[in-house]
Amino acid sequence: MLYSLQAGGKRIRPMLLYAVLESYDMDKTAGDSTACALEMIHTYSLIHDDLPAMDNDDFRRGKPTNHKIFGEATAILAGDALLTHAFHLISSDDRLTPEQRLENVRLLSRAAGPDGMVGGQTADMLAEDEEVTVEEMESIHNRKTGDLLAVALQMGAFIAGAEKKEQEALHRFGIHIGLAFQIKDDLLDVEGDEQLLGKPVGSDEGNHKNTYVSLLGLEKTKERLKFHTGAALSELEELSVPSHILQELAVYIAERDQ
Amino acid sequence: MLYSLQAGGKRIRPMLLYAVLESYDMDKTAGDSTACALEMIHTYSLIHDDLPAMDNDDFRRGKPTNHKIFGEATAILAGDALLTHAFHLISSDDRLTPEQRLENVRLLSRAAGPDGMVGGQTADMLAEDEEVTVEEMESIHNRKTGDLLAVALQMGAFIAGAEKKEQEALHRFGIHIGLAFQIKDDLLDVEGDEQLLGKPVGSDEGNHKNTYVSLLGLEKTKERLKFHTGAALSELEELSVPSHILQELAVYIAERDQ
Repeated sequence: MLYSLQAGGKRIRPMLLYAVLESYDMDKTAGDSTACALEMIHTYSLIHDDLPAMDNDDFRRGKPTNHKIFGEATAILAGDALLTHAFHLISSDDRLTPEQRLENVRLLSRAAGPDGMVGGQTADMLAEDEEVTVEEMESIHNRKTGDLLAVALQMGAFIAGAEKKEQEALHRFGIHIGLAFQIKDDLLDVEGDEQLLGKPVGSDEGNHKNTYVSLLGLEKTKERLKFHTGAALSELEELSVPSHILQELAVYIAERDQ
Repeated sequence: MLYSLQAGGKRIRPMLLYAVLESYDMDKTAGDSTACALEMIHTYSLIHDDLPAMDNDDFRRGKPTNHKIFGEATAILAGDALLTHAFHLISSDDRLTPEQRLENVRLLSRAAGPDGMVGGQTADMLAEDEEVTVEEMESIHNRKTGDLLAVALQMGAFIAGAEKKEQEALHRFGIHIGLAFQIKDDLLDVEGDEQLLGKPVGSDEGNHKNTYVSLLGLEKTKERLKFHTGAALSELEELSVPSHILQELAVYIAERDQ
């Protein structure tokens, strides 16, 4: 569990949560258990995705994948334990009100479950050797990646006591940056630097994955990245608080090189 | 997810929960989401345990295991989804008070996580080719099987509003029947009927597993089964309500033939 949690990574989900708390001028330690839970769930999904039966990846974040070090059985169990412990962390955190704990468990278990991340992962796998439209692919990405990013913002807004209208704007912001994130991932797999990425490029093509680049080509993919980044930024105009940190994160997602 | 949920099984964890609610003369529908969550978590653990990287079992409950039908990747994801959805079911059940939902999530995520079931499964795996004492083996079983059985009773007691003293007696009852359950499992693997069990006998010996029978022999194993069943029954004397249903379940666990 620790090996994969400490293997680095961009910590984007915790950053999004803390960015919301910072924007609303909240004590950021109120987000600690939820931030850790988000990263545990993200990390478990990577450990399971990397397994030989799934993507069969040997490297992640520049280091050997969990099962390459500890074996498949331990990797499966480490993922299961991280997922389960995520809900224990939130539900036993007495810095949150019982209402905040319960709502965060409810939101997070939906976003990570069969209607969210795991469902998206399954749909993605089933679509692997199928022709899909860009719309079908976006629906998969929304579940596979977008829901967990959007729920990070949504949980932050709930902890901050933001108004319903603002919670919804932050959720839409999350969906747009989720798609931007995935588009950027597809671009990096074609144009990225293996050293910076810590993983080989070109694996999507090798695995016959449907990507923005394979469906739209490079130029239109870059246009779409701009569109979603712009749409995300315009959602932030709905907020009653300064949003420069969230703006910076949206721009970082579009311009990152790893 | 449905295939494995509907593949039968004894439903012991839901039965224990409902038995507590029945004993306290509660509306049993108050236990539905928690009962389903318990069975989902138990089922996910079986799907993952059966994987080639773990126990590599082809049959479970007389039917092909999940990965034999759907492939390993889908089996891993079905398990992940069942585990995640268990917490969503409880946290979004408005027949329970917010306090009951939160406490059940907290108790269940502890019992199923790294300090409970998954930790026990890991310890069991690490001990497979080691010499262990009966005490070490019981500590493994308490986490691997006992914690989830005990938490079924504990959550029932919490929903029923039972006194702390009674909650604790029911928890100890759960630990004793958990050990009785495991001892009976070990006995059935030696003396059971393959037709009734729906799985081959003798697999523990083939897999070089530490069992009560391998450590103590048949006779002392049967004595220990009697001891834990008796200890469980005497805990029920602490309750302020009639406990004949729980008594019957304890006896069933010790005398079942599947």
